[in-house]
Amino acid sequence: MSIITLLTDFGVSSPYVAQIKGVLATRQPESRVIDLTHSVPPQNVQAAAITLDDLAPWFPAGAVHVAVVDPGVGSDRRILAAHVGDWYFVLPDNGLISPLADRFAVKSVVALDRPEFWLSPVSNTFHGRDVMAPVAAAIARGVPLEELGESVDDWHRVHIPRPRVMSKSIQGEVIYVDSFGNLITNVSADDVHGDDVFRIGDRVVNGLVRSYSDRTAGQLVALIGSSGRLEFAVVDGNAAVQFGAGQGASVEVDLVGETQRVGDSQ
Amino acid sequence: MSIITLLTDFGVSSPYVAQIKGVLATRQPESRVIDLTHSVPPQNVQAAAITLDDLAPWFPAGAVHVAVVDPGVGSDRRILAAHVGDWYFVLPDNGLISPLADRFAVKSVVALDRPEFWLSPVSNTFHGRDVMAPVAAAIARGVPLEELGESVDDWHRVHIPRPRVMSKSIQGEVIYVDSFGNLITNVSADDVHGDDVFRIGDRVVNGLVRSYSDRTAGQLVALIGSSGRLEFAVVDGNAAVQFGAGQGASVEVDLVGETQRVGDSQ
Amino acid sequence: MSIITLLTDFGVSSPYVAQIKGVLATRQPESRVIDLTHSVPPQNVQAAAITLDDLAPWFPAGAVHVAVVDPGVGSDRRILAAHVGDWYFVLPDNGLISPLADRFAVKSVVALDRPEFWLSPVSNTFHGRDVMAPVAAAIARGVPLEELGESVDDWHRVHIPRPRVMSKSIQGEVIYVDSFGNLITNVSADDVHGDDVFRIGDRVVNGLVRSYSDRTAGQLVALIGSSGRLEFAVVDGNAAVQFGAGQGASVEVDLVGETQRVGDSQ
Repeated sequence: MSIITLLTDFGVSSPYVAQIKGVLATRQPESRVIDLTHSVPPQNVQAAAITLDDLAPWFPAGAVHVAVVDPGVGSDRRILAAHVGDWYFVLPDNGLISPLADRFAVKSVVALDRPEFWLSPVSNTFHGRDVMAPVAAAIARGVPLEELGESVDDWHRVHIPRPRVMSKSIQGEVIYVDSFGNLITNVSADDVHGDDVFRIGDRVVNGLVRSYSDRTAGQLVALIGSSGRLEFAVVDGNAAVQFGAGQGASVEVDLVGETQRVGDSQ
Repeated sequence: MSIITLLTDFGVSSPYVAQIKGVLATRQPESRVIDLTHSVPPQNVQAAAITLDDLAPWFPAGAVHVAVVDPGVGSDRRILAAHVGDWYFVLPDNGLISPLADRFAVKSVVALDRPEFWLSPVSNTFHGRDVMAPVAAAIARGVPLEELGESVDDWHRVHIPRPRVMSKSIQGEVIYVDSFGNLITNVSADDVHGDDVFRIGDRVVNGLVRSYSDRTAGQLVALIGSSGRLEFAVVDGNAAVQFGAGQGASVEVDLVGETQRVGDSQ
Repeated sequence: MSIITLLTDFGVSSPYVAQIKGVLATRQPESRVIDLTHSVPPQNVQAAAITLDDLAPWFPAGAVHVAVVDPGVGSDRRILAAHVGDWYFVLPDNGLISPLADRFAVKSVVALDRPEFWLSPVSNTFHGRDVMAPVAAAIARGVPLEELGESVDDWHRVHIPRPRVMSKSIQGEVIYVDSFGNLITNVSADDVHGDDVFRIGDRVVNGLVRSYSDRTAGQLVALIGSSGRLEFAVVDGNAAVQFGAGQGASVEVDLVGETQRVGDSQ
């Protein structure tokens, strides 16, 4: 049994996801199809690239991840199939793959150019269904990437803001907001300590908490979230709403800590 | 392996969908269950009928499609099982099946009347779980429709607005709005040309674009969407919000074009 | 084939659900994973407990239900694995299991304490992914609960408001609002009759209807819903919005009826 996952910006209500699932069920009924998310902010390639990077590695080796966040659909942008780390990817050539390619071995990248693997006819507006889904089905049933297109190495990268890590401080930013209103930053757990000072806007938080339950309702806390990144959260509240902060908000860490990072002892 | 799909107006947050899935998992664990959408506008049979017509044919032959948009639940309206085209359907007799029946061969329609295939007891308010789900499970495991109820031919039809296609123009309307705010009309791709003139409200669009990326942000465009219908969209924007247009808005096409429809060359 | 279900308060847009599914797909690829709901009001243990009680029993014997509504994550609250009725449960020890334990036989409850069954390392903030998902995978592949932790009998209970049933009346309350705005109460179908008088706030409804279609649009009706409980609904409308009523609103039934409950004749 193979796994095909879907990440799109279609919204949870979209019938277009079901069309993709219909194509997959027709072409590769043996595969299990799992939704990663359909709630990427519309046409936000950066947010999609970060989310794909957060989710894809949790899946078993051989999983085929299809990412349809494609503001250039119908233009001459290419569609890629890639083997990066232990997983396969089918996605537009707009940088979606680049955070994963920075972290895992890039084994093969091809630009799709073999219409015999696609639906016929191909619509102008929905390559996710007409090209990416049938190609994902082909990969899931064992077709080598080399049969799907020509190898390329000039694929696009997106700019994911990286934090500036200095000896005494880190300057980072909020890269996305989760459904609880928690502010997820690009600052890695590996770079901070349990008793550092964390700043967002004009607010200061002294030290990390291990979890939300360490403070009382309404308090702003800093913690290492499940993504392995520094997060700001309001206990039993919504930090994004309460502080009017969102993607791109500046974050600073004063590296005053001597202690181990929270969680190191586990 | 067989496929059972679900289309409802319960909303993506509804626990009732899970009750249906529990019944299916109990009665027919071998089938794969796929969500078409649970976001049909509540009790809007017309929108549900159009959506089912857009989605069902993407699935493989033998798939069992269950559609629970049922304003008449608990009344004496009948529940149908139907074999139309290559697929099976279980749905209330309120017209949901009629757009598909207009396009594909109607092989058999029965009105369910054999309670031995239903849950016991049957609630007054949730026939989707208590009648339709167990009947879908029965079909998926091979029970012939004839064993589920009496054959009928007087099933209900819904009025799906058809465009008025004249020699020099087409008068149509918006039939639904997608999650991007794009306005999907009842005008078929087959009836328009790439350089026709497209009108919605007091706005005029000259010619179709092949894709959103052919224009700059904020522009109103007309294009053939993935549903095979004329759509109006705002590049990187929300046409429904920006123009205050929704389902039922009038659309007109001036058939001035001489050229092939966009996409014909593919 | 085994079944693992997921109930969380992460929201339908959350990527965290996909991380749990990735862990399950890696550890127990043979199991089918079914979403119960991800829309429990955030950190509302009572609503989650009621919802789990409404949904879990619809699934076949042996299903493993994972419930991640966990305001205490990272504190020293325990995580339980339980065998209650015909199903298995993995959930925090915050009372989520108690409505089911009131209705079905409690065969075994253990507090998880064997990290060899967990992911390594375990994050402070996401035990749903790092502890509960791999333990659910272990149960689904047949590991006995006794190998996962020590047996306990002092697990927490939640207060689910029970109605006060007197000889002439019942005093109850709204326990949740569904996606249609229907007001679901804690009054059981077994305790009311078809021609009782039903009160919510200062509104009075005479008698139950069998279904929404028994009255005209805009009317407030009382009926026995698919959950087996008394519900208030507005025909083709939203009762919660129209009456400003929500969870906790008082409900009263005057037991004047002599007739059978609606539906008894089925």
